[in-house]
Amino acid sequence: MDGKTFTSTAGKPIRCRAAIARKAGEPLVIEEVIVAPPKPREVRIRIICTSLCQSDVTFWKLEVPPAVFPRIFGHEAVGVVESVGEGVHEVVEGDTVIPIFLPDCGDCIDCLSDRSNLCTKLPFSVSPWMHRDETSRFTDSNGETLYHFLFISSFSEYTVVDIAHITKIDPAIPPNRACLLSCGISTGVGAAWKTAKVEAGSTVAIFGLGAIGLAVAEGARLCGAKRIIGIDVNPDKFELGLSKRLELRTILLSGVSFTLVFLFLTGKKFGVTDFVNSRNCGDKSVSQAEVRTIASSALGWGKTVVLGVDHPEAMVSLSSFEVLHSGKSLMGSFFGGLKPKSDIKVLEKRYKDKELQLDEFVTHEVEFDDINKAFELHREGKSLRCVIWMKK
Amino acid sequence: MDGKTFTSTAGKPIRCRAAIARKAGEPLVIEEVIVAPPKPREVRIRIICTSLCQSDVTFWKLEVPPAVFPRIFGHEAVGVVESVGEGVHEVVEGDTVIPIFLPDCGDCIDCLSDRSNLCTKLPFSVSPWMHRDETSRFTDSNGETLYHFLFISSFSEYTVVDIAHITKIDPAIPPNRACLLSCGISTGVGAAWKTAKVEAGSTVAIFGLGAIGLAVAEGARLCGAKRIIGIDVNPDKFELGLSKRLELRTILLSGVSFTLVFLFLTGKKFGVTDFVNSRNCGDKSVSQAEVRTIASSALGWGKTVVLGVDHPEAMVSLSSFEVLHSGKSLMGSFFGGLKPKSDIKVLEKRYKDKELQLDEFVTHEVEFDDINKAFELHREGKSLRCVIWMKK
Repeated sequence: MDGKTFTSTAGKPIRCRAAIARKAGEPLVIEEVIVAPPKPREVRIRIICTSLCQSDVTFWKLEVPPAVFPRIFGHEAVGVVESVGEGVHEVVEGDTVIPIFLPDCGDCIDCLSDRSNLCTKLPFSVSPWMHRDETSRFTDSNGETLYHFLFISSFSEYTVVDIAHITKIDPAIPPNRACLLSCGISTGVGAAWKTAKVEAGSTVAIFGLGAIGLAVAEGARLCGAKRIIGIDVNPDKFELGLSKRLELRTILLSGVSFTLVFLFLTGKKFGVTDFVNSRNCGDKSVSQAEVRTIASSALGWGKTVVLGVDHPEAMVSLSSFEVLHSGKSLMGSFFGGLKPKSDIKVLEKRYKDKELQLDEFVTHEVEFDDINKAFELHREGKSLRCVIWMKK
Repeated sequence: MDGKTFTSTAGKPIRCRAAIARKAGEPLVIEEVIVAPPKPREVRIRIICTSLCQSDVTFWKLEVPPAVFPRIFGHEAVGVVESVGEGVHEVVEGDTVIPIFLPDCGDCIDCLSDRSNLCTKLPFSVSPWMHRDETSRFTDSNGETLYHFLFISSFSEYTVVDIAHITKIDPAIPPNRACLLSCGISTGVGAAWKTAKVEAGSTVAIFGLGAIGLAVAEGARLCGAKRIIGIDVNPDKFELGLSKRLELRTILLSGVSFTLVFLFLTGKKFGVTDFVNSRNCGDKSVSQAEVRTIASSALGWGKTVVLGVDHPEAMVSLSSFEVLHSGKSLMGSFFGGLKPKSDIKVLEKRYKDKELQLDEFVTHEVEFDDINKAFELHREGKSLRCVIWMKK
């Protein structure tokens, strides 16, 4: 213990401010909450800044189970360890960390394997509780329990997170860049790097150019892709001045090496080399769009990667012929296939080496009191990432 | 030229016997046909023996396009080169060869690459013609054109095949074993070896235990799979005395490493270690069965491989959640992902080294005159492979 002031709160409940979602789709309300001390293998974090991700919005809008309210959303963030629970040796008070919704217990068969990023000891779910004991660490000023979100709940000045969801990060990285590694941008970069394993000189088609789609473009660029084709449904959302416009039909016939599909379509050009406005794809259901995307990948070995969030009962429909006779593959990617503890270190290094571009993803920054503005900017399709600062 | 008697026919039409399918689903008729000499890059082969494969039966039954009649079926065979067309340097008269429906031109970008087995110079199709000039080499005694099948048409004493569809084989291998490497058994073994890349110690579930499914089991065994679970719909088709019976539900929850799906379900145990009778899977459509099969593969990295023949318009429906949140993949496999020229050499060696088991696949052998009996045995589900000998 180095006598830093925040250690005085260790072991005690902390009263602080949090943005509470009391009802589906209604503006968050900033209230005082009580954050319990961390239990064994848990860490209490002071959030420095957090950013709004599509999954926050999806679950905030959702009116049916697994939706629960009142809830503290937020899962893309960076913070400083305030105190640790029993048995936590991986981090100490004062460490800068990013919370990651995907657990990495570090000792189950899957966490020890290099081919899975899905922990089987603490399996991912949309549970509203802490992972190990299925209780909450949050109560409001009336003593009512507040639900967690994705095991993180970063729309609070303090939160408690299981050590399996914590990755240390260099405190020298600006917080409004570090928080991007916590979810969306890593997901996109990872999908190109780890799931698709994009090869140098290859052609990549990206269906859906929101922040994640653009992060895939960034990942594909880092992997040396020669041509990156972006496909989206709304031309208003694109910056103009692109070098070349293609018809969707051209893409579907072009035999691209890797097709990456994102279920949320918002706009803006990034490292994309070609742009396609695929109205005839976007007007249809996601499943129909997927039929087209697998058709676009190269015969013999083309890979189609799907990532995003879809309704639990949604089906993906593919042409049997395209699958059977094509040697193509369809792959799901969760958190871009990244292992939270080890792979984020690699992205961190590539950012510090000025290879991975993060700055351009931050289109807006607001103070915590203005958190609902982040939701508005998202709804209007105006932001890629809006960073929410807990303290000025 | 070594003066072998068959050289006297080089450059001339050959009159011989072929089994002609004159109408969908009707018994083949053995008639005299005229087989033209090979054109440039083509080879005329004297067929030693051929075996009946599911694709022959599918297209023989088919009443709508791409069905065409009169046609000479057969594509799984072994024979001896009778003469070669201009520009053929890869084989000479007297060489023992197997014809393979999948082309391997040897010099297009895909044939030169080690990640595709789908030639783009002479792309596979269900064309009823020879590959390069889209004409036939067969006429009947009335001068009527007879259509080719899968570029092979081995239900004839002599046939003409493009050099891209020819692989040399050691003449010491018994013909009724060599012909099995020409299509089905290679497809199954290849699906485990090349497409799924089954690893030592892994668990493989095989949906559909016909000859190809059992060949997958054989391939999985060669790859060192620890547990091979066979799933089929008809318990009558299985040999009894299996060590263990499992519920389909157990398979769907077991997290197997590799799931291999075959669209044709016929029976009989092979190197399968566990057997499941999946009535509740088999009663449903192929697509519904596929939803279940991807559910059975391991979270994080499980692979589901689909192979077989399906209707051109058929769709594969999968749970979006299973794909998106699972890190699983779905792969199509055509000819088991094998490259016809190089990979068949490996299977040939493994057979000669007594590692690859072929004998047990041959359940019946008939003379050419009894070719319709092979169709009957197939319809009754009584045969895995029925070898048809052209000459006693």
